[in-house]
Amino acid sequence: MKNLKGALMFGQSGGPTSVINASAAGVFLEALEQENITEIYGAEHGIRGILEEKFFDIRKEDKKELELLKNTPSSALGSVRYKLKSVDVDDTDYKRILEVFKKYNIRYFFYNGGNDSMDTCNKISKYLQSQNYECNIIGVPKTIDNDLFGTDHCPGYGSAAKYVATTMMELYLDTHVYDTGMVTVVEVMGRNAGWLTAAASLASLKGLGPDLIYLPEQPFSIEGFLEDVERVAKEKQNKVIAVISEGIKDKDGHLISEYLSSKAKDSFGHAQLGGTAAVLAGMVSEKLHIKVRPIEFSLMQRCGAHVGSGTDIEEAFMAGRMAVRYACEGETDKMVVFVRDENSKDYHIEYKLLPVEFAANTEKTIPAEWILPNHAGLTKEFADYALPLIQGASNSPLEDGLPRFAHLKKIYVK
Amino acid sequence: MKNLKGALMFGQSGGPTSVINASAAGVFLEALEQENITEIYGAEHGIRGILEEKFFDIRKEDKKELELLKNTPSSALGSVRYKLKSVDVDDTDYKRILEVFKKYNIRYFFYNGGNDSMDTCNKISKYLQSQNYECNIIGVPKTIDNDLFGTDHCPGYGSAAKYVATTMMELYLDTHVYDTGMVTVVEVMGRNAGWLTAAASLASLKGLGPDLIYLPEQPFSIEGFLEDVERVAKEKQNKVIAVISEGIKDKDGHLISEYLSSKAKDSFGHAQLGGTAAVLAGMVSEKLHIKVRPIEFSLMQRCGAHVGSGTDIEEAFMAGRMAVRYACEGETDKMVVFVRDENSKDYHIEYKLLPVEFAANTEKTIPAEWILPNHAGLTKEFADYALPLIQGASNSPLEDGLPRFAHLKKIYVK
Repeated sequence: MKNLKGALMFGQSGGPTSVINASAAGVFLEALEQENITEIYGAEHGIRGILEEKFFDIRKEDKKELELLKNTPSSALGSVRYKLKSVDVDDTDYKRILEVFKKYNIRYFFYNGGNDSMDTCNKISKYLQSQNYECNIIGVPKTIDNDLFGTDHCPGYGSAAKYVATTMMELYLDTHVYDTGMVTVVEVMGRNAGWLTAAASLASLKGLGPDLIYLPEQPFSIEGFLEDVERVAKEKQNKVIAVISEGIKDKDGHLISEYLSSKAKDSFGHAQLGGTAAVLAGMVSEKLHIKVRPIEFSLMQRCGAHVGSGTDIEEAFMAGRMAVRYACEGETDKMVVFVRDENSKDYHIEYKLLPVEFAANTEKTIPAEWILPNHAGLTKEFADYALPLIQGASNSPLEDGLPRFAHLKKIYVK
Repeated sequence: MKNLKGALMFGQSGGPTSVINASAAGVFLEALEQENITEIYGAEHGIRGILEEKFFDIRKEDKKELELLKNTPSSALGSVRYKLKSVDVDDTDYKRILEVFKKYNIRYFFYNGGNDSMDTCNKISKYLQSQNYECNIIGVPKTIDNDLFGTDHCPGYGSAAKYVATTMMELYLDTHVYDTGMVTVVEVMGRNAGWLTAAASLASLKGLGPDLIYLPEQPFSIEGFLEDVERVAKEKQNKVIAVISEGIKDKDGHLISEYLSSKAKDSFGHAQLGGTAAVLAGMVSEKLHIKVRPIEFSLMQRCGAHVGSGTDIEEAFMAGRMAVRYACEGETDKMVVFVRDENSKDYHIEYKLLPVEFAANTEKTIPAEWILPNHAGLTKEFADYALPLIQGASNSPLEDGLPRFAHLKKIYVK
């Protein structure tokens, strides 16, 4: 719907990344330039803030602080994991959202997240259409997992990949310093797609990469893993680096992390992950009698804004900005996607749109032909794909030698 | 001994830091300018390289690559943990060192490391004196632990402290993003001194610091820890960040990490540490029934050159450079120390010397009066002390979006 005049609502959802706020900056700074956008609201804790009428008045923030959001990791407005029920099962939340949207004349809605958030976006969009409430809704992609369908890559991935590749190089130097050997088992995030784990292979371009990489795309066997480690240990005087994804599963699809203990489920029904490196390291020690150290990149890999990718920050910002521009041009029910110009010699991205239902709940994994046999890493095609995404430094401003993050006033709309 | 003409030997020892190679760069680049220094050798794996006659000819390296050592973490020559026996017990190694020094006319010896390495330096120096072999020997300090006696601080500490404080700020944002609570237990390196763990408190200056800090300087009780976490959890909707040092001990001096399992000892007789956060997190989950995540900064805190302190890099470089200058002026049997000008309003360091036996095996811990009661963190005095050490960015050069580390040819001396 073109020339829709009204307020804008923006929310952040799902696991934080180091550039999710860059997209927020893009949305807010573009919105400030759009005449048809009256008020600008930031929902506290995503959809929950809308349901509870808790949102901030972004027009009351300093523009300088909104600019600083580009280098501030995590979700400045607060995030949420809240799954909307199917409208056929329970339409309570939907009615409430419509009520709030009507009350504040919200005509532009932007939701920033991964698969689950695009599902939320899609459901709200379809419901509001069914109620003939005019509201332009655009999803802004975000996930370090890089598993969203229909986009060349996702904002958040480049920075996390840069963290993984850079840290891998540093760890390589650290773990090769003694003349005695040690096996290092590194665990990287990624539930069903190995994109982030694969980024460790970029360190190999500099001769400082891992020996073995285990992705969720391949069935994992503990026996096979121990055989691989033993083989490399013999070749390399026990100096072995193995990188595993937290999402590795056995041939029947059972998570290796669940072998250890039964874990809680999060509100989307995914198992809580983590700690797999420690278990596998224990097995290396027990079975192979080699000194071993497990390392988890843990939350650092997704919040390490200080080593963010300049390209990722700019693209995340533009994803937010383009979402607003497209919505103001009348687009709705879409997600912003990145399309890489394959004919251009240099890396070039165009920001296009995809119907949001295509993005919701579809996962994109690494093409099988990019994965080398014997867990030896990734092909050149992967490096050609991933390397442009980690270019440029974050150039985060420092204050007292520490990052200068954005300070939002966060004034509630009454 | 002044005007001593001969070769220089430099070795790296102990756990790596992100600036140990900056000191190597200082030694090598200064040595290239000194007329009395003939050959320049870099021992492979420290003292072991000398004993085995394995060292590199540094004059054959590109000067540009030697400059790049300033931003290359870990020990470019290889490190070692090798404890020389007392000369009264077994003088085999000492005789061998004298033999090698004579063969290559080594008249300048520099050893870069922490307490144990200064002990090695001291023993070799005293032995060579007893044999009337003229050799000027200077220790170059290095340790992320910051526990060396007689120096304001140690090269390596500032960068590791910057990693800890920066990452703490990022983790704070990440762990406070949901409206549901979670306890985070972060483990930081430090065997007997809590300097590095204390650096987490610098994040509090920006309002993004931990709630609780446990240092090895204070007796640790598991019951007390659980009570503290429970108290803060009640105050802060279960959002708690507790930072512990790997070296926390109970009131009888037993390492908490050893409660879990008996661990191997390293060659200096220290227990192998690590994993304490995971154990304490398990107890929080079991006893307090709060969601909890253990995080270890692991090797990343000591090799994270990408977030190195500009001040630390420059000081580490100067420590190496000054060691060579002092030796060429005839000084020997000393360690380079940093003396802070307490009368100057701005931070200013002078590079002085201390007899090396004072530095060997003496540990400097945090003054008791800098530690706040109830594990609430550190006083302003600590921040005044530590903040100048983390100033400035590392400005590591990038190539393909990844760090451009030094490539040494490492040509063995035949």
